[in-house]
Amino acid sequence: MRGFGMRSVNDVGWLEKERPACGPLDAIIRPTIIAPCSSDVHVAHGGSGPRTDRILGHEAVGIVDEVGEHVHRFKPGDLVAVPCVTPNWLSRGVQNFRSFSHDRGPFGSFKLVGQKDGVMAEYFHVNQADPNLAFIPDDVAPEAALMTVDMMSTGFHGVELADIGFGERVVVIGIGPVGLMSIASAALRGASQIIAVGTRPKAIEVAFEYGASTVISYKSGPLDQQVWDLTEGKGAHKVVVAGGDAETFAEAVRMTRPNGVIANVNFLDINDHIAIAPLDWGLGMSDKDIRGSFCPGGGKRIQRLIHMIEYHRIDPTKLITHRFHGFDQIPAAFQLMEDKSPDLIKPVVYID
Amino acid sequence: MRGFGMRSVNDVGWLEKERPACGPLDAIIRPTIIAPCSSDVHVAHGGSGPRTDRILGHEAVGIVDEVGEHVHRFKPGDLVAVPCVTPNWLSRGVQNFRSFSHDRGPFGSFKLVGQKDGVMAEYFHVNQADPNLAFIPDDVAPEAALMTVDMMSTGFHGVELADIGFGERVVVIGIGPVGLMSIASAALRGASQIIAVGTRPKAIEVAFEYGASTVISYKSGPLDQQVWDLTEGKGAHKVVVAGGDAETFAEAVRMTRPNGVIANVNFLDINDHIAIAPLDWGLGMSDKDIRGSFCPGGGKRIQRLIHMIEYHRIDPTKLITHRFHGFDQIPAAFQLMEDKSPDLIKPVVYID
Amino acid sequence: MRGFGMRSVNDVGWLEKERPACGPLDAIIRPTIIAPCSSDVHVAHGGSGPRTDRILGHEAVGIVDEVGEHVHRFKPGDLVAVPCVTPNWLSRGVQNFRSFSHDRGPFGSFKLVGQKDGVMAEYFHVNQADPNLAFIPDDVAPEAALMTVDMMSTGFHGVELADIGFGERVVVIGIGPVGLMSIASAALRGASQIIAVGTRPKAIEVAFEYGASTVISYKSGPLDQQVWDLTEGKGAHKVVVAGGDAETFAEAVRMTRPNGVIANVNFLDINDHIAIAPLDWGLGMSDKDIRGSFCPGGGKRIQRLIHMIEYHRIDPTKLITHRFHGFDQIPAAFQLMEDKSPDLIKPVVYID
Amino acid sequence: MRGFGMRSVNDVGWLEKERPACGPLDAIIRPTIIAPCSSDVHVAHGGSGPRTDRILGHEAVGIVDEVGEHVHRFKPGDLVAVPCVTPNWLSRGVQNFRSFSHDRGPFGSFKLVGQKDGVMAEYFHVNQADPNLAFIPDDVAPEAALMTVDMMSTGFHGVELADIGFGERVVVIGIGPVGLMSIASAALRGASQIIAVGTRPKAIEVAFEYGASTVISYKSGPLDQQVWDLTEGKGAHKVVVAGGDAETFAEAVRMTRPNGVIANVNFLDINDHIAIAPLDWGLGMSDKDIRGSFCPGGGKRIQRLIHMIEYHRIDPTKLITHRFHGFDQIPAAFQLMEDKSPDLIKPVVYID
Repeated sequence: MRGFGMRSVNDVGWLEKERPACGPLDAIIRPTIIAPCSSDVHVAHGGSGPRTDRILGHEAVGIVDEVGEHVHRFKPGDLVAVPCVTPNWLSRGVQNFRSFSHDRGPFGSFKLVGQKDGVMAEYFHVNQADPNLAFIPDDVAPEAALMTVDMMSTGFHGVELADIGFGERVVVIGIGPVGLMSIASAALRGASQIIAVGTRPKAIEVAFEYGASTVISYKSGPLDQQVWDLTEGKGAHKVVVAGGDAETFAEAVRMTRPNGVIANVNFLDINDHIAIAPLDWGLGMSDKDIRGSFCPGGGKRIQRLIHMIEYHRIDPTKLITHRFHGFDQIPAAFQLMEDKSPDLIKPVVYID
Repeated sequence: MRGFGMRSVNDVGWLEKERPACGPLDAIIRPTIIAPCSSDVHVAHGGSGPRTDRILGHEAVGIVDEVGEHVHRFKPGDLVAVPCVTPNWLSRGVQNFRSFSHDRGPFGSFKLVGQKDGVMAEYFHVNQADPNLAFIPDDVAPEAALMTVDMMSTGFHGVELADIGFGERVVVIGIGPVGLMSIASAALRGASQIIAVGTRPKAIEVAFEYGASTVISYKSGPLDQQVWDLTEGKGAHKVVVAGGDAETFAEAVRMTRPNGVIANVNFLDINDHIAIAPLDWGLGMSDKDIRGSFCPGGGKRIQRLIHMIEYHRIDPTKLITHRFHGFDQIPAAFQLMEDKSPDLIKPVVYID
Repeated sequence: MRGFGMRSVNDVGWLEKERPACGPLDAIIRPTIIAPCSSDVHVAHGGSGPRTDRILGHEAVGIVDEVGEHVHRFKPGDLVAVPCVTPNWLSRGVQNFRSFSHDRGPFGSFKLVGQKDGVMAEYFHVNQADPNLAFIPDDVAPEAALMTVDMMSTGFHGVELADIGFGERVVVIGIGPVGLMSIASAALRGASQIIAVGTRPKAIEVAFEYGASTVISYKSGPLDQQVWDLTEGKGAHKVVVAGGDAETFAEAVRMTRPNGVIANVNFLDINDHIAIAPLDWGLGMSDKDIRGSFCPGGGKRIQRLIHMIEYHRIDPTKLITHRFHGFDQIPAAFQLMEDKSPDLIKPVVYID
Repeated sequence: MRGFGMRSVNDVGWLEKERPACGPLDAIIRPTIIAPCSSDVHVAHGGSGPRTDRILGHEAVGIVDEVGEHVHRFKPGDLVAVPCVTPNWLSRGVQNFRSFSHDRGPFGSFKLVGQKDGVMAEYFHVNQADPNLAFIPDDVAPEAALMTVDMMSTGFHGVELADIGFGERVVVIGIGPVGLMSIASAALRGASQIIAVGTRPKAIEVAFEYGASTVISYKSGPLDQQVWDLTEGKGAHKVVVAGGDAETFAEAVRMTRPNGVIANVNFLDINDHIAIAPLDWGLGMSDKDIRGSFCPGGGKRIQRLIHMIEYHRIDPTKLITHRFHGFDQIPAAFQLMEDKSPDLIKPVVYID
């Protein structure tokens, strides 16, 4: 079968592979819509180390093509959403009440692309179908469901991690699709003022639609100073970091009030050390938690996010700025992510 | 000065009283808008025991008329919202991370009406002004701020207590003003399906505006059966009890899934025993928490709820169905609460 | 093979059965030490409904005899402890951060005796060996490890559920082996005063060894009154219910302070309705949580409890008052649980 | 009156001051036992900035000498313990469920030495006596109670912050008196393996008495490597940082497992930047929380810690290695803290 991926670092293109085999607990999926993600681009450039001959992509909805003999919940023909995080539920790592993201070491539950071929193919493999897949009901658009598998799950997780209470002032750093979902979910947790940080015009427009009170720019001076000014000198209760670099992170610590939380869902660059100045962090005693987390895995979480769409709590399709049609358009969509045109938030590819 | 209250059980009317004295940490408030509450009616009928010569009312916004010598944050002329729960912050009871509601025994922080004259007067007393009052900013309508001091605080607390996660299915029992605020705040915590229970037409209309997915009636059969049916046989993750009696409570336990929560913010009738059938409660081992709580006190909470209005997260004035004008209209508003006309949710009285 | 169990309600004895078959993820265990539990007696008398031809017993350590082809962590010959709660980790129910006890409906994770033959046999079956078994290190006595699989796990869970903070006053109702483990773990969470409720002399002696400050009796008047007296009129912060009936439960609610927790780990009798008097529960608003839970399942939890023994934090073998030797002694041990002699806490049977 | 303090940075000695005045909510205390703390030495050397003419000391028990007119709970002659953190309970900062440490900005609740004269004087002032003092019962040695006001409160808080579960592996960095109390309280929360880091012989001896499983040294190689080795390659679930510098902090992050917590209760040096390497922190997504907190304030917390002593859960007097007698011995005790002899853990001065 054909798949789009990296032949080696900085060399992407079509790969010819065997259709993956289905284990007794697993499923083989035929994707119907996929979305490239900036982390696919990152990986293609060697961001997670040297890798060869790997199909990319970890965001897909599709049709179940085959299931293993011990799969009971799903059957061929079912339309499903596939979480980007699919834990091995038989591992010990999931027996941890804080997260299902790390079934062995960090990212152990991130199988697609991370440990095997991804979704930009005619078929792809999902481990443990019963716990890991989610149904898409008739009244939810498949492209909306596609937005749950990483963008909503990750963006919403930033807000869960920040533990936002009613009426708190929240800053969301970054207005890529994950940051935009953090803005939407901060509003859906009852934040009062939501200050977003970003510059891309289309994303700013959507940030306001999802509930941002103000959008500030890196270019207008130190972010922490801007936040102090906008919050009547009080600072942010909670900061969600969904973009930026080490300098931005330091500003995030500075803009947070005592008893606050800095919640990171941004992949840190491997070469970019986070530095915390003691005074910014109250000499280590100001109750500013610093958290960094990967979105929890499993089908139940994604099913609940799909329910939110079904009950009209959110419309994540505002993220989708570009729609491609046809399997052959995957490289074009991927290139768009690489180029990041000003009007881009998220592209999807309908496969027929 | 004049005040409206209970001369004795079942005998309400105008009372003539001394203007209250202001202690060194306290404030005297001149109310500008007040709202009668069904619990005032309850108290007037002896619901909290025999009481004589007590001015009623615990929901008010107003102008600070006088402050004690140790008050620094507020001054005469300030427009403020007064929480219905005003703890004595010097008591030991507040040094408890779970709630600021019980500064001595249960309800210790409920001072107005509970321990002294209430707000339906020319002036009323607030203990410890600095920690207990909240400013009303120019861009928030005073009648909207008035809705925060009990209705929003209590209704939202039901949802806080239920600890609602993204995409969970929630039932709110009761669509009086508190229940309606629980519906609104369940949506503001990211619930998916919200099933409300009630029958009054005007309230049903507003329930949908605040985010109810469905409204069911006590009259259409056992509530738990209706909930099972509406949730594809799965039951509710969380149930907020903002109305009903012991039988309703039993149904609430029955409709809740394992690992769920039943969160009560309803005053139980002193004669109405809650009974839990072992099978309904998984023989005591099904992880269905039963919680009952009074809204937390203090000015910071109310300030944050006012911020939610300021940043357009909620408009609580949809609750206000009747507006009276003039101090002399207090008895008429009170009578309306007593009579509960079909189109009533919440009346307010503008005082001039 | 032979097993001891119930032929029908109230008729126990030896059963002749096939050696269980091992699925691809599972293990077959040859028990080396087993312990009867009072819930086995309860089941034998029909306490969980009519049941026939079922081997009893859910507390065992043993030698792995066979593993399925997909088991990687354990192999024949390993000495293991078997949790009494062994979830199906491929079910959706475990994807819940609050508990792993209910993999479908309530008690779904309680497989042994509940859904298949138990451990009082030459061999028994464990579903999903990798996530569900725990190793017993050389420096931990197997009979100590045996105490973790239900007694420690359940007793400690009462204390986890009660969420005990440093210096809080705790009441533990019941001083059977589970209650004794709640006493020990209350001390191991930093409780100050621990008031235990019970009357059996041997158990009282061990209660003091595990950290009880005082032991009171049902016979000396209402428990809540005794607790008020012993706590300088302040009541208990937290109450763990590990015994008693509906009347005891009502007393538990009464003895708890506002902001407290009543944590039940006791199987409620199916005919014994819990009733809560409104005033005892602060009219539904006193922040007294009522929780009831089954101990969480899985091998990691048991492994951690075994670590506590390994690092000398607790010696659970003080529970073991009677040791039988030989497979044929299982009926005698079972009969002892039935008779409850005054010097009994927990019997074990060494099989060889 | 006389007091021992800093005339200016690096210049300590006796100061002559007015006896402090007592406000209406406050108390004046005559100390009977005081303890110098290493942070007093730190302050004397300018560690918290330039300061002149300030009496030092924030750990004391004593006799109430005078109370303000609005104090109801305490009266002259009472023997009390004085928390090192005494919030202004009328401030808004305490209306935060996470901590009572910051009543305005960071450390706002740290009044003694931080904002006014400390306890090394004939008399000292305590703001808001009712919420802030704690009684010492007859059966608790005053010098034991003295250990609660900072050493136990801070050391135990490290463990609260780390949120230790039953059977978890814990590292405590630093075996000064705070670190030793973290070790004791880790055992009192049910940790299994406790690895302590330190080198001073007397402190090592006491570390084992309080429950350390192993004590490792900075001198034997990178701490994280030693911890990996001692934990069978699994790392620590939780790390309490009660000593060390930025390099130690980086090692703490490295030795922590995914889903773990690094809990800091150590004053960071103002010039010592914390740096987090992305790989050590799982590229920002490994669910390793980094927390830093000041011990919560108020009398109720200290009263509960005193209850723990009263009920024999802990004996903190093992910390006391040196006892001085007489007010005039304060400088000698202070000098001992400065010199840090190998046999020193904590000195106290009995004042008569």
